[in-house]
Amino acid sequence: MINYPNKKINNNVKITSSANRGMNFETMINQTNDFYLDNDIAVIYKKPIPIQIVSVDYKARSAAKIVEAYYKLPSTTDYNGIYKGLYIDFEAKETKSKTSFPMKNLHEHQVKHLEKVKKHGAISFIIVYFVLLGRIFFLDAKYVCDFYLRSKNERKSISLEEFVEFGYEINEGYQKPVDYLKIIDQYYIKNSSK
Amino acid sequence: MINYPNKKINNNVKITSSANRGMNFETMINQTNDFYLDNDIAVIYKKPIPIQIVSVDYKARSAAKIVEAYYKLPSTTDYNGIYKGLYIDFEAKETKSKTSFPMKNLHEHQVKHLEKVKKHGAISFIIVYFVLLGRIFFLDAKYVCDFYLRSKNERKSISLEEFVEFGYEINEGYQKPVDYLKIIDQYYIKNSSK
Repeated sequence: MINYPNKKINNNVKITSSANRGMNFETMINQTNDFYLDNDIAVIYKKPIPIQIVSVDYKARSAAKIVEAYYKLPSTTDYNGIYKGLYIDFEAKETKSKTSFPMKNLHEHQVKHLEKVKKHGAISFIIVYFVLLGRIFFLDAKYVCDFYLRSKNERKSISLEEFVEFGYEINEGYQKPVDYLKIIDQYYIKNSSK
Repeated sequence: MINYPNKKINNNVKITSSANRGMNFETMINQTNDFYLDNDIAVIYKKPIPIQIVSVDYKARSAAKIVEAYYKLPSTTDYNGIYKGLYIDFEAKETKSKTSFPMKNLHEHQVKHLEKVKKHGAISFIIVYFVLLGRIFFLDAKYVCDFYLRSKNERKSISLEEFVEFGYEINEGYQKPVDYLKIIDQYYIKNSSK
């Protein structure tokens, strides 16, 4: 992704205050999930990283030591759980681009997974953090799938303007750095408009 | 767990036909989940094993090689997903005992996790395979928690008779070796009696 420094910045591209800037995005999501868990609001976890274990050394007295293993491609998304009886499923990504989210950051099977669980009744989505803008967006799986299909022929990314138009912006907070359940309360549960 | 070979066998302890005997229980569950997924019935996955990665060798040309890592205790259950809009969460265990399931096979945080997600509206349970009897039982988290609490003072196991009384037996099948969704259809969705 190339940034064009001289490109006129769109009005939507405002730099918001970002108390959590510098904090790793995964840590921000995990802290939010911890808050939900500790306050009995929701039970949502990050799944462990899938690893292919090849060789384990059992010689160690206390614990088995894995001495050869490789990262595997995840077959699903990173996060899932339950909130108010609803199955929640999402992928969280960050980008250093100021203008768009490159589609290559999502694997095809992750997009298909989001689509599948949505079909079965889940609330599924992606959360994208534009690090340099300090802005975080929630985008429903419906649009993720649409944009993913488009990326096979046309644009290989989702523009910031599209996040503004089709997604919901998540405000950063101290205790809940990425309070995505607020979006679900506002747009999925109360209105059932989406 | 000690087996008493001369103990009179209870009438409930029948040896059922077991086409899948010898197949690893995890494989049986995974095959069942694959069937559900391939036939668009449900989206339920086993979570990856949690690993603490200590050292990674990036010298390899193609893939990063993990050279030091350790198994971590799982903080949740092994399986979760969605079925007919319902959040499903369970742990699957096997035992070689013919008379009872030793409670030490479940970690306290797993029991608490089952209880938590149930409170938020999940269908949560354990599936226990009595390998030598070829019998598989589905036991709701409510009873798992009750028996877990009991195990702190009294009996450290759940007896086969208790599985028969409080749980549901799952019949083994060829395409769906552990068809636990049938139990959910019968006792959770149609009757809503539990």
